[in-house]
Amino acid sequence: MTSASQRPDAAKPAAPVGALAILAGEGALPVQVAAAAAAQGRKVLVVALEGPFDERLRAFDLEVVKWGQIGLLQDLCKRRGVTEIALAGSVTKRPDFRSIRLDMGAVRLLPRLLKGVVGGDDSALGFVAKLIEEMGYRVVGPYEVAPDLVAEGGAVAGPPMPNDLAEDVVCAMRAAKAIGALDAGQAAVSVSGRIAALEAAEGTDAMIHRVGALHADGRVKWRGRGGVLAKCAKPQQDLRLDMPAIGALTVEAVARAELAGIAIEAGRVMIVDRAETAAAAERTGTFVVAVDGP
Amino acid sequence: MTSASQRPDAAKPAAPVGALAILAGEGALPVQVAAAAAAQGRKVLVVALEGPFDERLRAFDLEVVKWGQIGLLQDLCKRRGVTEIALAGSVTKRPDFRSIRLDMGAVRLLPRLLKGVVGGDDSALGFVAKLIEEMGYRVVGPYEVAPDLVAEGGAVAGPPMPNDLAEDVVCAMRAAKAIGALDAGQAAVSVSGRIAALEAAEGTDAMIHRVGALHADGRVKWRGRGGVLAKCAKPQQDLRLDMPAIGALTVEAVARAELAGIAIEAGRVMIVDRAETAAAAERTGTFVVAVDGP
Repeated sequence: MTSASQRPDAAKPAAPVGALAILAGEGALPVQVAAAAAAQGRKVLVVALEGPFDERLRAFDLEVVKWGQIGLLQDLCKRRGVTEIALAGSVTKRPDFRSIRLDMGAVRLLPRLLKGVVGGDDSALGFVAKLIEEMGYRVVGPYEVAPDLVAEGGAVAGPPMPNDLAEDVVCAMRAAKAIGALDAGQAAVSVSGRIAALEAAEGTDAMIHRVGALHADGRVKWRGRGGVLAKCAKPQQDLRLDMPAIGALTVEAVARAELAGIAIEAGRVMIVDRAETAAAAERTGTFVVAVDGP
Repeated sequence: MTSASQRPDAAKPAAPVGALAILAGEGALPVQVAAAAAAQGRKVLVVALEGPFDERLRAFDLEVVKWGQIGLLQDLCKRRGVTEIALAGSVTKRPDFRSIRLDMGAVRLLPRLLKGVVGGDDSALGFVAKLIEEMGYRVVGPYEVAPDLVAEGGAVAGPPMPNDLAEDVVCAMRAAKAIGALDAGQAAVSVSGRIAALEAAEGTDAMIHRVGALHADGRVKWRGRGGVLAKCAKPQQDLRLDMPAIGALTVEAVARAELAGIAIEAGRVMIVDRAETAAAAERTGTFVVAVDGP
């Protein structure tokens, strides 16, 4: 299902042309992206959206903007010689649209934007990406700046995968891909070659918890640690804007549910804070492998 | 996905050749099947498995057998001129295999049975069906005896389907079929054209409850009654032995979750106790429609 053109080449960072702006939401991801770009000798501008952000971002050239300050964003990018913009971090606190005050830059862009966007079925993220491209910048994915965010096929963290769980890796990955094609979810759990859970609106963590409860009730049986969580990208997903992710919390949830391990799609699922994730996998005895999508 | 040969022809009951034996588990289904066969003027033998069964079965020629009494079952069938056997009703109380005492009939069949079954990956039901066929009887599905158990395409019960929910009917049905092909589950919920939940090991009722909880938390939004539960058969399912079913309890769970209605696959999903189901649909304002599988 994954063609060479769809699959980002994790080994090859984007050529550093001009400065990189990082539109930063919450969490550790913007810090990782900024640090990777800085380590490559690249000029970095971090533009944090008002609201909570990781304090470590203050180590970089940081500006804080309000929702609607598109003109300010443009000015900042122009002054710093920005050519590419990466979106990183989640935005859990949605703006109150009535309180957004569009600045002159936003008002100038609005007619072209509305023309391009109204009538489409873009997601909020798709809208932001169109806006950025309309401003003349290239949108890049965090994994293009920090290739270490994704894994090549093979062992990623924790103990080696037991051979008898290879079937569950394949089964769960195939199911996760199938429900991704339905635009329903990105994750599935397989136990003894049978699907135990499929993710939709409840999210990955709630699904893992459900399997743990079914196991505790004796409705899904295995001995010791068993079963595999697979997570992969939807075939139609724009990975620059929205890449599935796992992290230490995912590993801990999997261990609590007494599942044996995690399979992620190689090159198309982020490992947020790899050192912390690897430590959690080691501590809880949870294997993490990356495999090519089915 | 459904070819003409896979789809049972609900309008045409099996030709009544010889007596019909009904191997009866729990619930109302065996009563419905026995009553339908009797109404067709057919000789009926009800063989109830020890354990709870519907008292209304006492109105028919009834014998109670223990697990392992295969010889007795054969004698009974031979004496009544049985040519076909239908399995109906659930068996929630699994036998303790150590306490099963095989009678002579079972012991005689065992070598041939073991030869045919060991090494295969039959389910318990598939095993029973093979055993029956090994004994020389034809296995028929409850819907072949009582065609009213399944619905032709169109409105089935409750208020008319609102036009703006046609998209959710199609979306949920397509998802349910896709996860059936994965052998994961048989049901899905769609809200505003997006999949809200997919069934796996937790079962249909738990999945419906989950959507209700996500709605109550504001994580899946709709106004009033919205969203559709779809249920359909797996493409590879042997419908004679194991047909997906809905009933009054399904309708009530859907109404409690404030979902708008139910779509079942025409001809391939049973409506257990249709009058009671229709009454529940009417009382709770829940539409039930049958549609051809995608």
